[in-house]
Amino acid sequence: MPGNSFGERLRITTFGESHGGGLGVVMDGVPAGLLLDLAAIERDLARRRPGQSAITTPRKEADAFEVLSGLFEGRTLGSPLTFLFRNVDADPRAYAPFKDLYRPSHADFTTQAKYGHRDWRGGGRASARETVARVAAGAVARQLIAPIEVVAWVHRVGDIEGPDLWDVDAGAVEANAVRCPDPDAAARMEALIRAIRADGDTIGGVVRAVCRNVPAGLGEPVFDKLEADLAKAMLSLPAAKGFESGSGYAGTRMRGSAHNDAFVPGPNGVPITTTNRSGGIQGGISNGMPVTFTVAFKPVATIFQPQATVDVHNQPATLTPRGRHDPCVLPRAVPMVEAMAALVLADHVLRARASR
Amino acid sequence: MPGNSFGERLRITTFGESHGGGLGVVMDGVPAGLLLDLAAIERDLARRRPGQSAITTPRKEADAFEVLSGLFEGRTLGSPLTFLFRNVDADPRAYAPFKDLYRPSHADFTTQAKYGHRDWRGGGRASARETVARVAAGAVARQLIAPIEVVAWVHRVGDIEGPDLWDVDAGAVEANAVRCPDPDAAARMEALIRAIRADGDTIGGVVRAVCRNVPAGLGEPVFDKLEADLAKAMLSLPAAKGFESGSGYAGTRMRGSAHNDAFVPGPNGVPITTTNRSGGIQGGISNGMPVTFTVAFKPVATIFQPQATVDVHNQPATLTPRGRHDPCVLPRAVPMVEAMAALVLADHVLRARASR
Amino acid sequence: MPGNSFGERLRITTFGESHGGGLGVVMDGVPAGLLLDLAAIERDLARRRPGQSAITTPRKEADAFEVLSGLFEGRTLGSPLTFLFRNVDADPRAYAPFKDLYRPSHADFTTQAKYGHRDWRGGGRASARETVARVAAGAVARQLIAPIEVVAWVHRVGDIEGPDLWDVDAGAVEANAVRCPDPDAAARMEALIRAIRADGDTIGGVVRAVCRNVPAGLGEPVFDKLEADLAKAMLSLPAAKGFESGSGYAGTRMRGSAHNDAFVPGPNGVPITTTNRSGGIQGGISNGMPVTFTVAFKPVATIFQPQATVDVHNQPATLTPRGRHDPCVLPRAVPMVEAMAALVLADHVLRARASR
Amino acid sequence: MPGNSFGERLRITTFGESHGGGLGVVMDGVPAGLLLDLAAIERDLARRRPGQSAITTPRKEADAFEVLSGLFEGRTLGSPLTFLFRNVDADPRAYAPFKDLYRPSHADFTTQAKYGHRDWRGGGRASARETVARVAAGAVARQLIAPIEVVAWVHRVGDIEGPDLWDVDAGAVEANAVRCPDPDAAARMEALIRAIRADGDTIGGVVRAVCRNVPAGLGEPVFDKLEADLAKAMLSLPAAKGFESGSGYAGTRMRGSAHNDAFVPGPNGVPITTTNRSGGIQGGISNGMPVTFTVAFKPVATIFQPQATVDVHNQPATLTPRGRHDPCVLPRAVPMVEAMAALVLADHVLRARASR
Repeated sequence: MPGNSFGERLRITTFGESHGGGLGVVMDGVPAGLLLDLAAIERDLARRRPGQSAITTPRKEADAFEVLSGLFEGRTLGSPLTFLFRNVDADPRAYAPFKDLYRPSHADFTTQAKYGHRDWRGGGRASARETVARVAAGAVARQLIAPIEVVAWVHRVGDIEGPDLWDVDAGAVEANAVRCPDPDAAARMEALIRAIRADGDTIGGVVRAVCRNVPAGLGEPVFDKLEADLAKAMLSLPAAKGFESGSGYAGTRMRGSAHNDAFVPGPNGVPITTTNRSGGIQGGISNGMPVTFTVAFKPVATIFQPQATVDVHNQPATLTPRGRHDPCVLPRAVPMVEAMAALVLADHVLRARASR
Repeated sequence: MPGNSFGERLRITTFGESHGGGLGVVMDGVPAGLLLDLAAIERDLARRRPGQSAITTPRKEADAFEVLSGLFEGRTLGSPLTFLFRNVDADPRAYAPFKDLYRPSHADFTTQAKYGHRDWRGGGRASARETVARVAAGAVARQLIAPIEVVAWVHRVGDIEGPDLWDVDAGAVEANAVRCPDPDAAARMEALIRAIRADGDTIGGVVRAVCRNVPAGLGEPVFDKLEADLAKAMLSLPAAKGFESGSGYAGTRMRGSAHNDAFVPGPNGVPITTTNRSGGIQGGISNGMPVTFTVAFKPVATIFQPQATVDVHNQPATLTPRGRHDPCVLPRAVPMVEAMAALVLADHVLRARASR
Repeated sequence: MPGNSFGERLRITTFGESHGGGLGVVMDGVPAGLLLDLAAIERDLARRRPGQSAITTPRKEADAFEVLSGLFEGRTLGSPLTFLFRNVDADPRAYAPFKDLYRPSHADFTTQAKYGHRDWRGGGRASARETVARVAAGAVARQLIAPIEVVAWVHRVGDIEGPDLWDVDAGAVEANAVRCPDPDAAARMEALIRAIRADGDTIGGVVRAVCRNVPAGLGEPVFDKLEADLAKAMLSLPAAKGFESGSGYAGTRMRGSAHNDAFVPGPNGVPITTTNRSGGIQGGISNGMPVTFTVAFKPVATIFQPQATVDVHNQPATLTPRGRHDPCVLPRAVPMVEAMAALVLADHVLRARASR
Repeated sequence: MPGNSFGERLRITTFGESHGGGLGVVMDGVPAGLLLDLAAIERDLARRRPGQSAITTPRKEADAFEVLSGLFEGRTLGSPLTFLFRNVDADPRAYAPFKDLYRPSHADFTTQAKYGHRDWRGGGRASARETVARVAAGAVARQLIAPIEVVAWVHRVGDIEGPDLWDVDAGAVEANAVRCPDPDAAARMEALIRAIRADGDTIGGVVRAVCRNVPAGLGEPVFDKLEADLAKAMLSLPAAKGFESGSGYAGTRMRGSAHNDAFVPGPNGVPITTTNRSGGIQGGISNGMPVTFTVAFKPVATIFQPQATVDVHNQPATLTPRGRHDPCVLPRAVPMVEAMAALVLADHVLRARASR
């Protein structure tokens, strides 16, 4: 299969460049009869939207979407559910000066190397705008998997780290522009982002996420481990460069005797664990505890400082970007991480129906 | 698709439990006409084999394999290439005492929760023995992708870390039992592993890997980014809990101005980058620089100390494991990481043939 | 994978109901750099369009399409190529009287049984309007596989059969409204269709097709035989009920000594066969001879006569259809058959690039 | 995906050449907990076995199989269920004289054209021996889908046709060597086959099949129509050249008023149809009536008469086959057709679990 689809039983296919006719997503495999809450989709889209706060890009995007198919009298039909987002604030002139330059740490060169032809008006398929389609699809997936709840938040920006908590409430995340549930850390993160923007620079960080009420039994034992599918989902996000499940890299420093999660009798005849270093996943399959993971995002590649690069003729050149970009992708990455996690979980919820 | 297959154009399907009739792998999509070097496959299997050194489990496994199909007169036929490994040193009695117990941080409980039925004689599909099939398949993939070279090594065990190098030679990795190319760090790692084994305990760590001679243009722009497929491949390995591409988590602390990889004119009219924080992948597509990544492995769950747990009736119990297990999975994880990386690259090499 | 996609390397996903926001197709896997001939797509769409002649439905459809993505400066980008067709002449009131009835030999009952919810305004996903997306995609596939040529025609309507020829020219097919290359048979077929329409009835028939310049080596030896994929493609068309490859059912009456295709030396060191009962496919793989097949189409289920049926409450009812439907689907099925054949061939052309 | 797998949720992958180490099948997606009846599998294999009667090839095959994985204490584990069949009566010397010849209407030339390398010792992957793996898998699928019953039989051999019945009992099919449930027709068919064998020739024919107790709602509306998947399954069988669903080619001669299946109120609030020209499938989805179809098989290509052909150097040659082959594949095709139908139905039974 070519690479613009994701998922097995709930399969999304996204399409569209940042500066063509529009972007969209076809969701195949959405069960019939789901009463779709369109306002909830709007809310998630608003959380991803550029220009939502003083620390994101001032660029405006048309997130108004049209449901092209799959919905009748408010309920899903079991047929492909399709969302279309028109491109309206797409000004290719902003990109014309860079038409023949390879922007450092962007996809310009690799796209050219792969396809021999590219749309230089923005990032093409590599544009973060593609994630608008994922967030819409993820918002549908969320509704499919209720009462499973997916909450992500900004845990670290540069060197400013929030408290080591996993018991985070969605409301606290939305209480500030940074989407860090700790008000003090959030304030310091916001100050850092403002300072970095003033320098024409960018900064990376880490998003944490927790999925609650995940039943035991999701995920497959070998290649399609729940954490493997989450890892792929997260690393498919723009600027993502790392993933940890449960205790992650920190856990590698521990001894097994300290790391193992002891089982104790739980309610309804089902055991629970006293700790959750496994991150809710054992042997690739959910164990009923919260599923926890982190995602690393590198600093955005578009900076407002002159940079040495080459042009399409392999000649030295200098790039001085203009335009409107985020100094830090983290606050807007939160809904993207949630969307991809919801899609992975929904896929495995449907897959589990055939496991016995 | 159910979850025992991996890859699109080069698709492997593994089968077998640790204590059934055998394990194996069917490789579908291997191009015809490849003169297969079986000795090279044997060498990679020997690197994965239990009992290979004083710091691995003394358990013996029958890694002797049979090529069931796909090979004729030494060359691949284009038909499924199948390897079968018989189970011979499989003594289920070792597991009988734990038959009704859920071993902490193992897959016993989740397997039972998912399937309602499990093979208690060893880990079933969750057994690390399943990786023998992956290493064989990976050794074939390596031959397919030559001159691409994949080298992995142990970078950290517990808190003992090797030097921050990516320019590592395969020979240096194999020069000691730990598979850390730095002799001094290797000696300290080995001492740590011996001490931990003496305590009946286990320890985790980090593997690093580099893929050289990867042409620009491998990987797909959206979901099947090269790093996304590598992330899934690595997180599908037993005990893997984290993945980083290029600068990974460390890169998230940097500013864009320091993190971006500047392009400079390269040979043959193709640009190169002066640094490689992108890890050879930009926008999900290889850029011709070395592909670099790390994998986090948690401490092995089987420890030789009594642990509190529950039984299948949700009653408290105490587990005192016996048997033969690795105190540290890292040295044997090195060939597994290489195998999965080679499989991902081979898949994308074949996929790229249809990109333009 | 859910069921709205087709193909492996060239993968199309269609979406849309007959009376929703629109229909469309996402083509994933179209190689980059193809200079797309949009007029050729228009021509194929015109051949499928309702109302094109006196013997098709007078219903008008908006076949004007928009290329939403995947095209830049006239060339494909290697990203998903998306076509959108708006629904404009969709008058749901025509269907309101049948809202609670199950139309005989239609998909109303089975859709309700499967999904528990359906769009009664037209055929939903079962509507033949869905094929507009396939014809557009097929027209792209045709351009990809040039110089392979795919020609289909009406071979039989009811009991009126054209001559037993496979050497048919595309121009002769388009020379009359029936799309039968034999003028005499075409005239009799047209008269039959007019008479049947006057009765408020419908009639079935057979389409034949030939694919020329197919190189030897397309198709896979076991499940994805070229004829197996063609069979699936054709039986996925609305009203299709049969498929034959090469000599088909007639060949089953023959002896092997009469049926076998003798090889003789051919040009360029490659053998050819003196006859072509194999239909250009041996062991599932093309042999360089023309690929030939037939497709059986049942009479359209919508007739303008009262019919006994039941309603959604399982109570007897009488249906008296109104509306605008084809008395014979065959003339408009010709471009659909060609489109699906082109898609199958294009998929296998791309797949073959990885076979050795 | 390469072409050696079939099915989405129940996915089989077959491997093996006729003269290598063995053949087999990996079934991925078999739900856990199925108490497997191995004797039933043996019974189906015996029906496919060469040498079972006076009118099949006297060649003996080792159909003894080993369950390599997926079964524990008699029940499926939810992991891959793997069957291995060793090749024992494989005498490559019988093929040595034809090593450099392309046998007419066989896959020798196309395999060479595709892969540039082939196993000349028998048919390789194109050998009908590959179907032993399908029959074993189909026998498992049958058990999964109970109480759905799949019965196939020989309806026509050459010009000798059985009565036009669909209400056929499995016992009647097995009452004679031809597998035609009509004793009189069976006797005439057997006499024809004996006469044809005496001539060193072969003959084709038609298999009919019915699937009973299929619930309404199996199949997908667009590409994965139940009849489309059946068509692919059947055309993937060796020597299959045609497929009809329900009324098939005969139905194309009818008017809609005569062809439509009228609904009448049925038991349990669910309508039934008074006729079944739809073959139990409407809009690609089962409607609760018996699913009926036919499969056309061409005469076996191996005849015992001299034939003109070419060699691998494109030079004229004469082939005089020796060996042991069936004069008519039909009797042994019956269990193959049943197996593939059971696999398609089992796949859709599992897929339907996620449809609403």
